Amino acid sequence: MVEHDSSALDEVFHALSDPTRRAMLRRLSAREHTVGELAEPFAMSLAAASKHVKTLERARLVRRKVRGRTHVCGLNPTPLAEANEWLRFYERFWAGRLDTLEALLRAEDAATPTNTERKKRR
Amino acid sequence: MVEHDSSALDEVFHALSDPTRRAMLRRLSAREHTVGELAEPFAMSLAAASKHVKTLERARLVRRKVRGRTHVCGLNPTPLAEANEWLRFYERFWAGRLDTLEALLRAEDAATPTNTERKKRR
Repeated sequence: MVEHDSSALDEVFHALSDPTRRAMLRRLSAREHTVGELAEPFAMSLAAASKHVKTLERARLVRRKVRGRTHVCGLNPTPLAEANEWLRFYERFWAGRLDTLEALLRAEDAATPTNTERKKRR
Repeated sequence: MVEHDSSALDEVFHALSDPTRRAMLRRLSAREHTVGELAEPFAMSLAAASKHVKTLERARLVRRKVRGRTHVCGLNPTPLAEANEWLRFYERFWAGRLDTLEALLRAEDAATPTNTERKKRR
């Protein structure tokens, strides 16, 4: 973890802590959207949607481009890579657990005779 | 993304959006700590530290065990794996960008004669 990125990480994780904002990012991963289009699937006002978009912009997850009179939002994946980098420090813990679980299951498989083997023994 | 995990993800990302809580998790990755030990490096009261620990517990990132009269906190990495899973959907975007950058650099390398080649030409 790079310490000077701390407040940037605060903003990114905060932006991700809301299901509407996560759904907006998912839609932006397919293509660019206007704020109006982003608001559409949710039962919310344009003002409420705009507030969510602003939180995403503050976290640098969304870039707004002005095309004539339309504001178009695009996904900026870089902060997600930074969040992922922070999380990866902990990968050894869950990876370790999965390895242990896999080893246990394999040991169990080896100790249990298969159906064919059982039949042969009869 | 598993939809029914949505509120769990809310809690996890919210817990991670604070530098004190991230630092607490980092310390817990080394060994278990009491709430008092977790509070120590920060200029904060035991009550304030306890509030942070409660946020981490709500996100299931910390498990508190009672040993006699002492409460010991341990790291639970599973929710971090779930957050990582959510982020990995976007890996294609930042991975794609890095691939493009790498391809550009390689193309540049191929186009630029090496020092040895330059000497041979003289």
